Amino acid sequence: MRTIHVIGIGTGNPEHLTIQGIRALNATDVVFALDKGEAKSGLNAVRRTICERYRERPGCRFVEAPDPERDRRPAHYGVAVDDWHAARADLYEDLIATHLGQDEQGAFLVWGDPALYDSTLRILERVRTCGRIDFKVSVVPGITSVQALAASHRIPLHRIGEPVRITTGRRLREEAGAVEGATVVMLDGDPRFDGLDPDLTIHWGAYLGTPDEILSAGRLGDVADDIRRLRAEARQRHGWIMDIYLLMPPER
Amino acid sequence: MRTIHVIGIGTGNPEHLTIQGIRALNATDVVFALDKGEAKSGLNAVRRTICERYRERPGCRFVEAPDPERDRRPAHYGVAVDDWHAARADLYEDLIATHLGQDEQGAFLVWGDPALYDSTLRILERVRTCGRIDFKVSVVPGITSVQALAASHRIPLHRIGEPVRITTGRRLREEAGAVEGATVVMLDGDPRFDGLDPDLTIHWGAYLGTPDEILSAGRLGDVADDIRRLRAEARQRHGWIMDIYLLMPPER
Ligand SMILES: C[S@@+](CC[C@H](N)C(=O)[O-])C[C@H]1O[C@@H](n2cnc3c(N)ncnc32)[C@H](O)[C@@H]1O
Ligand SMILES: C[S@@+](CC[C@H](N)C(=O)[O-])C[C@H]1O[C@@H](n2cnc3c(N)ncnc32)[C@H](O)[C@@H]1O
Repeated sequence: MRTIHVIGIGTGNPEHLTIQGIRALNATDVVFALDKGEAKSGLNAVRRTICERYRERPGCRFVEAPDPERDRRPAHYGVAVDDWHAARADLYEDLIATHLGQDEQGAFLVWGDPALYDSTLRILERVRTCGRIDFKVSVVPGITSVQALAASHRIPLHRIGEPVRITTGRRLREEAGAVEGATVVMLDGDPRFDGLDPDLTIHWGAYLGTPDEILSAGRLGDVADDIRRLRAEARQRHGWIMDIYLLMPPER
Repeated sequence: MRTIHVIGIGTGNPEHLTIQGIRALNATDVVFALDKGEAKSGLNAVRRTICERYRERPGCRFVEAPDPERDRRPAHYGVAVDDWHAARADLYEDLIATHLGQDEQGAFLVWGDPALYDSTLRILERVRTCGRIDFKVSVVPGITSVQALAASHRIPLHRIGEPVRITTGRRLREEAGAVEGATVVMLDGDPRFDGLDPDLTIHWGAYLGTPDEILSAGRLGDVADDIRRLRAEARQRHGWIMDIYLLMPPER
């Protein structure tokens, strides 16, 4: 039976890879990599670096395919995601059927950890449900951008014994209420920090784990403008940006 | 200046260690390990295994010290934690001053990731604030039990684009309300699942990443009794248990 390893590779630093990840990579015959176009091509470069650095035997096939187009401004978010997952499932099925022999092992190298805002597991589940090809899935956890953020700032994610919530920029704006406890915000394409308590503490980081890492922290009211400026400049310079932040309400 | 590496070592599988962690370990002169007594001694055994397996040069000093007593049934939780942190800060200061030369590097090997329900960073910050010894802190992220849970069940932590909350058994009981979204519960010494919606889906795991790993999943109403029984038996057999679970409300 075919095996597909879904390997978390961390968030930019090739040394985020775990020994478990290296072992899975070395068991792999074919690495599948989706090309998300020019802007994001830095990501596939990290994947290639990882393969070259950690593969002990030669002869790993690296299969790249263009990522299906995604509707970036959909009328209905859920439907657009569903269409896109369906297109990806077709592509994955095709890639596996075409490039992976019956007893071979394939791998998807997932940015960060496969459990957090990544669609690979859901899409593979869809392919399996279709029932045209059969395979086993094995998941290797990886360092998330949440952890990279905390490590670079050398902070815990929450106050003692309190919870932490991980959410998206979209949800933060939709909720538009008070930030109740420690809150990590990912996937915020345009952080405005509008309507947030200026007394929140923010810890922000971009390009974490890479040589371009940028950090900023402080009272939101004091640093929000700086962060927006830093972010706009960096985005301009690189052509793309990946950033994340932790909001912490003032101690009661 | 002294450097202290706070290295996340993952949650039981020595292969959770990252290349970055191995590099920090190899730069280290002294590893500090707190002995939490017989029951938890499995944890220091994993730390020793990691040192032996990944240290490339010999001569790493391994300093063990008894962990200060902690009031397990305090009248006031916050005060008890504060007293205990103060006692630990004294101990850490003493260990560093006694065992680490002025230009040496020390390491604390932290279970999982240092940012999640671990006191090492807070305690080192206290020591530094005291001002009697000076050192630099460097943090290496590690695989958390949250990720180990998701990987073993091969699931994402949340529905598409939705948030996930990480909390403690204590908080879950205190809130005693409906579970609003994907919720990971850690540090639950006695999961009863009382008053929770039986239609929640639970993914539970104990001793994750170790050869003793146990998993269970299903509709809470169907599996709660099984999980409690499995948990009680395992705890009896091993003398201790570490477990974690994800609760997911039914799709609306
Ligand atoms: C599609 S999600 C993937 C998350 C990934 N699976 C993880 O575990 O971190 C992409 C989001 O992750 C965050 N992110 C990923 N890598 C990052 C990095 N190196 N620096 C800052 N943020 C990053 C950003 O919030 C970005 O919008
Ligand atoms: C003091 S916290 C430390 C968490 C750790 N820093 C992390 O990143 O996972 C201990 C809690 O973590 C969870 N935990 C840690 N290791 C685990 C394992 N191997 N299996 C299941 N749960 C684990 C349990 O909920 C336990 O009560």
